Amino acid sequence: MKPVAVLGIGQTPVDEHWDKSLREIGGEAIFAAMADAGLEKADALYVGNMLSPLVSGQNQLGTFFSDWAGLWHKEAMKVEAACGSGAAAFRAALMAVASGEVDVAIALGVEKMTDKSGHDVTAALATAADADYEVEQGVSFVGLNALVMRRYMYEHGWKHADFAPFSINAHANAVHNPNARLREKITLEQFEKSAMVATPINLLDASPIGDGAAAAILVPAEKVKSVPGRPRVLVAGSASATDTIAVHSRRDPLFLSAAYQSAKRAYQMAGVTPEEIDVFELHDAFSIMSALSLEACGFAERGQGPRLGLENEIAVTGRIPICTRGGLKARGHPVGATGMYQIVEVIQQLRGECGPTQVEGATIGMAQNIGGSGATILTHILKIG
Amino acid sequence: MKPVAVLGIGQTPVDEHWDKSLREIGGEAIFAAMADAGLEKADALYVGNMLSPLVSGQNQLGTFFSDWAGLWHKEAMKVEAACGSGAAAFRAALMAVASGEVDVAIALGVEKMTDKSGHDVTAALATAADADYEVEQGVSFVGLNALVMRRYMYEHGWKHADFAPFSINAHANAVHNPNARLREKITLEQFEKSAMVATPINLLDASPIGDGAAAAILVPAEKVKSVPGRPRVLVAGSASATDTIAVHSRRDPLFLSAAYQSAKRAYQMAGVTPEEIDVFELHDAFSIMSALSLEACGFAERGQGPRLGLENEIAVTGRIPICTRGGLKARGHPVGATGMYQIVEVIQQLRGECGPTQVEGATIGMAQNIGGSGATILTHILKIG
Repeated sequence: MKPVAVLGIGQTPVDEHWDKSLREIGGEAIFAAMADAGLEKADALYVGNMLSPLVSGQNQLGTFFSDWAGLWHKEAMKVEAACGSGAAAFRAALMAVASGEVDVAIALGVEKMTDKSGHDVTAALATAADADYEVEQGVSFVGLNALVMRRYMYEHGWKHADFAPFSINAHANAVHNPNARLREKITLEQFEKSAMVATPINLLDASPIGDGAAAAILVPAEKVKSVPGRPRVLVAGSASATDTIAVHSRRDPLFLSAAYQSAKRAYQMAGVTPEEIDVFELHDAFSIMSALSLEACGFAERGQGPRLGLENEIAVTGRIPICTRGGLKARGHPVGATGMYQIVEVIQQLRGECGPTQVEGATIGMAQNIGGSGATILTHILKIG
Repeated sequence: MKPVAVLGIGQTPVDEHWDKSLREIGGEAIFAAMADAGLEKADALYVGNMLSPLVSGQNQLGTFFSDWAGLWHKEAMKVEAACGSGAAAFRAALMAVASGEVDVAIALGVEKMTDKSGHDVTAALATAADADYEVEQGVSFVGLNALVMRRYMYEHGWKHADFAPFSINAHANAVHNPNARLREKITLEQFEKSAMVATPINLLDASPIGDGAAAAILVPAEKVKSVPGRPRVLVAGSASATDTIAVHSRRDPLFLSAAYQSAKRAYQMAGVTPEEIDVFELHDAFSIMSALSLEACGFAERGQGPRLGLENEIAVTGRIPICTRGGLKARGHPVGATGMYQIVEVIQQLRGECGPTQVEGATIGMAQNIGGSGATILTHILKIG
């Protein structure tokens, strides 16, 4: 595949943007990324979004945003893979540039979720699961993840408090991210006493929804020999893999086989091993997912993911820093935008722009975005080069 | 761009499939295309769909179908561009193969529309338009097209009956297509007397909705030196272009500038002129769109599209045969699937499989798929080579 670089990044804070429309928050991220890249035009726009038909009554989001960004007559399309939509849009943009068809591609992840009631949003999020065989039974999306977490605790002997470090680490890092939704530290006591959502997942195991948008500009690497004042960031690895859509259909619901497959292919493509990853933005929609993702990607043995948290190896000074900008847990989880936030945050790390949560000397970073309960998993490896 | 060939095609009849689920009709098209290609595996699946979140409560359709097709651990994503979703999925598959990332890609267009009431489907289709500035005013999708048709008739002096040949031709051709929804001829008198939908668009100006799915298998051209018994079909041209999403924002609402741009780029890429196109499957969602598409793509002067119908140049024996399998008007318009039906039908023509509506000696065909009221337009040129 032809080498591709990321020339610019942009984001808008994750928040309840009641004063801004879907159009405005997506536009903010696009314009920020274009300004960061020093460009005024692009050839194509790939938009990752999950909920706009259900929440905003708006489809055709590619053209909706290309129009708003003044990209008339350019290519545009929307890509959807539930909560994995953001990274899927990035991958679509990557393939367009790598194919030689497109020279300057914008990948945008955008989601506006807070315009509807919590009940409506919960129902909308359930469309990520299998409508015929899961949702039909009355299970919600958090309910599905709760079943997985409960089984994991039973099989591997962990207690609920053992998952606390994932949320505590994410919140501690979010304090230093101006784009994070929950910029406040939490304690173990708060974690243990927070309100139950779906046993054993409580409020501080779960990521908050939000409105948000993040974008990146992809170009052929050969066109970016050097950008003054900052390193060139290459897309070194990219892979997407799927599992069954329904959790109950899996041979082993406690192993993210799609994460294993997509990480394996991304490592191969980038020519790196897990040991070489300096920073890892993983998909901690629920604390259990941090454990499963770390295991599937080769950072922990099966059933031992929580140990990395308990031993402080996930901190920015640890062996595998995760959620360095707050993760889904504290930066927030505007579902179709999340994958692009992760990629943008990894690039901020590679550029050394992360202040108190900067991973010293980071040159290789990984972002992993998950659609559904482990059904669609995209892994991207970015590196300075 | 690396040359890409279409190795197999498949489709399910457009109908009211009350006895089959979304999963089943999409699966039928995938399995038919795989069988046609003589393959049992694929590396990636790109699914075009517009309405499943709203009609079926199902998102993440890429993985939904990769699971059903047994493509576990493979890549899958959904692509959406309103009624242009089908061709957008084909283009995503094309870029994946052209980039070298994917060897065997399935492009699927699928839509299940008849499980909801007409009122619900009309509301769902309106999500193709601008929710804030068009739908908010109470206009429906057919209403928007009616405004365009009325203005066109006023500007260019055509009367309603002048559009009849488009519908009469489509219905006459559909009689010979076992996958068409409306396999019956219509007369000028029926056309003129049919029930009004949104003045001046009546029932026989408008395409019927339906459930349907069509698929194609894309592979690097170099891997298909020759297929016994049939010609190799190459993707010679592919382009996507956009306009403003709202019709009222356009400088000239009677000119499909996105069709002009995408056709121009597809012609350039394929190295052909409009005169060399043997068959053209265009997006006749409403009769006015046939006229506008023919004009924008270089087959008629501005305002003169209806003349091609009146002079019988759109018949299979005419200068530019259109809707040779029934078009949207009579094959039916399962919105997110339509673009894939068009591509599959062009390939049937190039293979000489169209019986009484075969265009003799067809070697180059074009398919044009439109999302929204001319907002997203994808043009593909296929040729024997």
